[in-house]
Amino acid sequence: MPSALVLLAPGFEEIEAVTVIDLLRRAQIEVTVAALEDQTVCGSHDIRIVADTRIDGLNPDHFDVLILPGGQPGSTHLKNHPTVLEWVRKRFSSGKKIAAICAAPTVLEAAGITDGLKITSYPSESAVFSASQYIEQDVVEDGPVITSRGVGTAIDFALGIITLLKDRKTADQIAERILYSTKNSS
Amino acid sequence: MPSALVLLAPGFEEIEAVTVIDLLRRAQIEVTVAALEDQTVCGSHDIRIVADTRIDGLNPDHFDVLILPGGQPGSTHLKNHPTVLEWVRKRFSSGKKIAAICAAPTVLEAAGITDGLKITSYPSESAVFSASQYIEQDVVEDGPVITSRGVGTAIDFALGIITLLKDRKTADQIAERILYSTKNSS
Repeated sequence: MPSALVLLAPGFEEIEAVTVIDLLRRAQIEVTVAALEDQTVCGSHDIRIVADTRIDGLNPDHFDVLILPGGQPGSTHLKNHPTVLEWVRKRFSSGKKIAAICAAPTVLEAAGITDGLKITSYPSESAVFSASQYIEQDVVEDGPVITSRGVGTAIDFALGIITLLKDRKTADQIAERILYSTKNSS
Repeated sequence: MPSALVLLAPGFEEIEAVTVIDLLRRAQIEVTVAALEDQTVCGSHDIRIVADTRIDGLNPDHFDVLILPGGQPGSTHLKNHPTVLEWVRKRFSSGKKIAAICAAPTVLEAAGITDGLKITSYPSESAVFSASQYIEQDVVEDGPVITSRGVGTAIDFALGIITLLKDRKTADQIAERILYSTKNSS
């Protein structure tokens, strides 16, 4: 069974986190939700989620994808966390998958892995990236990195990760089951 | 400030619940999340959310809308809860707003308020309703009742409630801010 590690920092965006956890579990991907600090984490809209574990002692290499939800101050907390930056760098250098949405792609920039990488983010964060690499598209994949834009693209982001870890057919079946018509579909 | 009461039963659908709580709070609607039983509630995909309170002692008349997320066995728990059924009946008879998504519109049926009411739900629950009242549309409003279909229509559901409690302009601003293009928009 493919596996995913979702990091929750205080002030994470709740819809972005919950959408990816929920839909990946529907796709039979083993999802571990890990808190940066206390195990009960309060999101940016005062919704408290109890994580499965804390990041201490976790080995990120055990997971097929590391997922960073956005939101503020959640993304800033992730960006300021030495362990998170180290995990991102190590995974990237060994070609392991990393996914980030909304403001969280700035964590990848802070980790120094985005040079020449095609990327997207919440529009207000775009200045962090060079114009040549930035793509205004709901979901952008480049090598082991998948990024997305915000709450309104969270389902597309989750379906993109499912496609990467399982296959397109599984993602399409879930989209159909949740009655979601992707906005990009022709 | 308008107010909303969201009920969480064990096995609620996490995306449906979190989307409505998050987006209504963005719209400056005061949202109270109330647990049917224990204050930490486990959803249908093993995501645990800490509710703001429990339903004991709450007065539902204090809220402008009562919101029932879907999911299973969450919707069945809501349907089997005498207090929930009583609240639905009382609110309906005094014209107070009620919102339900996915499998939760069946709670309205169990409360006996759906006769002649235009309604929608998750497709597999449609047999509960008469063909003449059932509408295959992402969000259906009839009098004080607003219903929707599932995870893939949860943002539309939340925007519909925001339009009812505030106005269309506020809902449109939030849709824009979260980068959401409603599928029904022309």
